[in-house]
Amino acid sequence: MNPYLHALPAQMRDVIRKGEFTLPTTGLCEGYAQGNLVILPEKLAYDFLLFCQRNPKACPLLEVSNAGARTFPTYANGSDITRDVPRYRIYRDGVLTEECNDVTALFDSYPERLVSFLIGCSFSFEFELLAAGIPVRQIEEGVNVPMYDTSIPCASAGVFSGNMVVSMRPISHQKVPMAVAITAGMPRVHGAPIQIGSPEAIGIADLAKPDYGDPVTIHPGEVPVFWPCGVTPQNAVMHSKPSLAITHAPGHMFITDVKNTALKW
Amino acid sequence: MNPYLHALPAQMRDVIRKGEFTLPTTGLCEGYAQGNLVILPEKLAYDFLLFCQRNPKACPLLEVSNAGARTFPTYANGSDITRDVPRYRIYRDGVLTEECNDVTALFDSYPERLVSFLIGCSFSFEFELLAAGIPVRQIEEGVNVPMYDTSIPCASAGVFSGNMVVSMRPISHQKVPMAVAITAGMPRVHGAPIQIGSPEAIGIADLAKPDYGDPVTIHPGEVPVFWPCGVTPQNAVMHSKPSLAITHAPGHMFITDVKNTALKW
Repeated sequence: MNPYLHALPAQMRDVIRKGEFTLPTTGLCEGYAQGNLVILPEKLAYDFLLFCQRNPKACPLLEVSNAGARTFPTYANGSDITRDVPRYRIYRDGVLTEECNDVTALFDSYPERLVSFLIGCSFSFEFELLAAGIPVRQIEEGVNVPMYDTSIPCASAGVFSGNMVVSMRPISHQKVPMAVAITAGMPRVHGAPIQIGSPEAIGIADLAKPDYGDPVTIHPGEVPVFWPCGVTPQNAVMHSKPSLAITHAPGHMFITDVKNTALKW
Repeated sequence: MNPYLHALPAQMRDVIRKGEFTLPTTGLCEGYAQGNLVILPEKLAYDFLLFCQRNPKACPLLEVSNAGARTFPTYANGSDITRDVPRYRIYRDGVLTEECNDVTALFDSYPERLVSFLIGCSFSFEFELLAAGIPVRQIEEGVNVPMYDTSIPCASAGVFSGNMVVSMRPISHQKVPMAVAITAGMPRVHGAPIQIGSPEAIGIADLAKPDYGDPVTIHPGEVPVFWPCGVTPQNAVMHSKPSLAITHAPGHMFITDVKNTALKW
């Protein structure tokens, strides 16, 4: 039994901040949106903000901190960006060098001000799909969602470029229109699918071999449906080899005070 | 009879570029989205981009040019930002100093690179309202839409701050839900109303005295409905007194290749 299923986000962030919870955040604070975190030096912030503006389906920005500030006042009032994620990844020159659960010292000692970006996450639309009676396979199978590199180029911005990464969920063909309609209503968390049923059309050769995450079963009568994925901006960042980038570790998300359903507004 | 009602956007931009059309753009290229234009020095671009990100309802960004580039490749391939608007306004230190129909020389000679921002315009959702049989009063009366300063603070970003400006359209009370639903489906052109029926709740004292534009008649049985307005970012820019800002003159918009209906995606 998960004791944090109905925790309030501020309480949960406090538990995480104290170092008392370091696991993936799936299933925490039911109904509240979780987000992807990217922290970059200020000199890269304009290019990254522009990359997100130009690729809103893959990179739906929820909030951008002030330079040097450690909180997201709108989505998580009172939050501490450098301690409220249960597991961080630190990249130097594009190489993963460390995982930890507190980046405060690094954030404060870094010679340049850092800017934090909170990006919408598919957990939010999966919550709505489940609520509508549409099963989500990787949750059923207890694995990570399968993700694939595609041949769809992102619009580049300054030092950032790359192809779109997509996540895939098999949906029964009767429910595909419903799944499209529900997710289309949530553009701040990736929105509608980018492809339905034709993986080869976007450069995906073998669904059994995802580039990230785990393969899932596709049952007879199901169609693979592809959504723009938050790994897209992470990839664009890593390929540009910034002197420093801090992100959440996969599945260890930033928990916001905003309900998933409120993201329809 | 308007000879440009069914012109294609690229053809219309060409006519404007040649200086053969210098009037307001309402009624041109039926069905295609028109946008607000703001051009700023590169050193202000990050703050302005962040201001738009933080205030997406008032400042729904459609496209941002590369620094120093004179075209919007996504929304208007082949466009020339400095000649494709029929009337520009030039502000220096926040003061309107000139109106003209070509800012190429200024753009190219300015000592700093300039960045152009294309912002969604309520013309797009008015097209959808009319198509659904919801009258738009200021069009019926042949005047500018009434706009009002409000007490709703925008989220500030760097040098940019200010209160939200709203536009008002009287809607018959039976059609208010339909008008909300239609515009809510178009978040890239301001989206849903911010207030319905209670102007005093957002600091508006007298509907007969708009701060911008013209008053319109409110018939018995009609409710004043308020949408976030693209004058909001212009105000924020002027208050910050940038060394240079170039905008379209009111009503003289930038015509894009994207259909209004496509902005629902």
